Amino acid sequence: MLSLPERVQVYEVGPRDGLQNEPSPVPTDVKVDLVQRLADAGLPYVEASSFVHPRWIPQLGDAEEVFARIERKPGVRYGALVPNMRGLARAQESGVDTIAVFVSASETHNNKNLNRSIDESLANIAEVIGELKGSGTWVRAYLSMVFGCPYEGEIPLAQVAQVAERLFELGIDQLSLGDTVGHGDPRSVGERVRSLGEGLPMDKLALHFHDTRGTALANIVAGLDAGVRIFDGAVGGLGGCPYAPGASGNVATEDLVQMLHSMGIETGVDLDALVGVAAFMEEKLRKRLPGRFLRAACGLYEPPA
Amino acid sequence: MLSLPERVQVYEVGPRDGLQNEPSPVPTDVKVDLVQRLADAGLPYVEASSFVHPRWIPQLGDAEEVFARIERKPGVRYGALVPNMRGLARAQESGVDTIAVFVSASETHNNKNLNRSIDESLANIAEVIGELKGSGTWVRAYLSMVFGCPYEGEIPLAQVAQVAERLFELGIDQLSLGDTVGHGDPRSVGERVRSLGEGLPMDKLALHFHDTRGTALANIVAGLDAGVRIFDGAVGGLGGCPYAPGASGNVATEDLVQMLHSMGIETGVDLDALVGVAAFMEEKLRKRLPGRFLRAACGLYEPPA
Repeated sequence: MLSLPERVQVYEVGPRDGLQNEPSPVPTDVKVDLVQRLADAGLPYVEASSFVHPRWIPQLGDAEEVFARIERKPGVRYGALVPNMRGLARAQESGVDTIAVFVSASETHNNKNLNRSIDESLANIAEVIGELKGSGTWVRAYLSMVFGCPYEGEIPLAQVAQVAERLFELGIDQLSLGDTVGHGDPRSVGERVRSLGEGLPMDKLALHFHDTRGTALANIVAGLDAGVRIFDGAVGGLGGCPYAPGASGNVATEDLVQMLHSMGIETGVDLDALVGVAAFMEEKLRKRLPGRFLRAACGLYEPPA
Repeated sequence: MLSLPERVQVYEVGPRDGLQNEPSPVPTDVKVDLVQRLADAGLPYVEASSFVHPRWIPQLGDAEEVFARIERKPGVRYGALVPNMRGLARAQESGVDTIAVFVSASETHNNKNLNRSIDESLANIAEVIGELKGSGTWVRAYLSMVFGCPYEGEIPLAQVAQVAERLFELGIDQLSLGDTVGHGDPRSVGERVRSLGEGLPMDKLALHFHDTRGTALANIVAGLDAGVRIFDGAVGGLGGCPYAPGASGNVATEDLVQMLHSMGIETGVDLDALVGVAAFMEEKLRKRLPGRFLRAACGLYEPPA
């Protein structure tokens, strides 16, 4: 029998994790509108942009402008990805009070993606968090490749646990465990999360699934059953997968919310409003997004060719 | 903790349930090739066509020719949908030894779809099964709208159970419980299946999910956990949904098999071969199919515009 909660928190990462993988550039106006519409739909967290150097992620090179222009809604956290001290300085100049840091559970992926070792990344994160002491800034961490890595295959659970524990020791407020390429399956997700939850604070763990193989919602069911109460999504399934053209990116937030509501699990999100945001992004990007419920809800909508 | 089996049977309904909903006509040659490729990929059951009157389903009006031309592989069941005595006569003339009958758990849907009451449909099925006595013909039944109906909403579980029990009393060999419009959610699927399994032979129950809202694999996880060991799929996610243009049809068989294999659950199916069949159908239909793993596995394939 599935063990299910009454309430779940849904975290929106589309404006950052989605748009950083969109091939077409999105105007700042649209980004600001997107972030505000997501907050208006009732999402408690909207990751609005990234202070990674624009040389690496030109899609989000307008982070300062986005943060300068969004009207903040009380009770909503507007997050920004911060890779290092330079990014932190930019975030602080923009008045950001919610940051996200990231490291991989896979040594090879960390090296390829960030050009440094896991230890070096953790030292970096320690420096960023040290700088923030006393500022009241809330820190979310992303741990990548928790459920498999395209370079190393399965990452030993002890290694995942060790990096996760060090992140909490450094003072993060929440840890999002990432199935970065969508290799997770419901059995391994259930087993890994249950095992990690023994040494980590379960109420501070989130799950972040990419839907490359269509298993994201199935993995979320396994995560719910294992006790996780926070799940990430990107509206419309924005983003795609750089490893597999045509494959999906993050699970579509509205697919996740629809499933949770059908299961009688509260999220505080207005599903109709959220579907409206996904449709808005299809119109702006002039293409179909991979979200499933969007097609069921707006089946007749055909984006311009 | 999810309760998971070591082995699952995957039933392929694409050539029938998929192609009957494809708007473009598929040449008989392609259908024959499709059925044979599916059997070669290791599927134990391939629903090859339908003896519903061609006036209602012109897409499958060539059922006789399909059955005349497929080369049967030992150990594989080649099924045909049989709606009534006229359809049965056609099936028998074609030497079909595996038939599928169907009825809805929703009175309104049964009336709209079949122009008769549930009781009249059951009487029909009784007549068909009576005629088959002693012939050794294997009978699968489909029960539609088990997890919700677009006309009646949730069908009372007692009503579902009653129709299901009558089907087994009539002598069916297997019952496929259908989420015909994809309204099921993992909580209700788990609860309904567990409850139905108390009065029905669990080893003769199958689950049949449409992926309209992207929840089919999540529902399958709930079905596995509840004890079901047979699941239906349509290769590539063939078929679409007549209620929501652009939405998905049956869950893609290769998405299902990929998830099961990732979970360490055996199916006897060759996943690479199955993905090849899905790619073959994309080429023949000249369009992208909704299957997810297909895009991850063949991301670079762009169907002709």
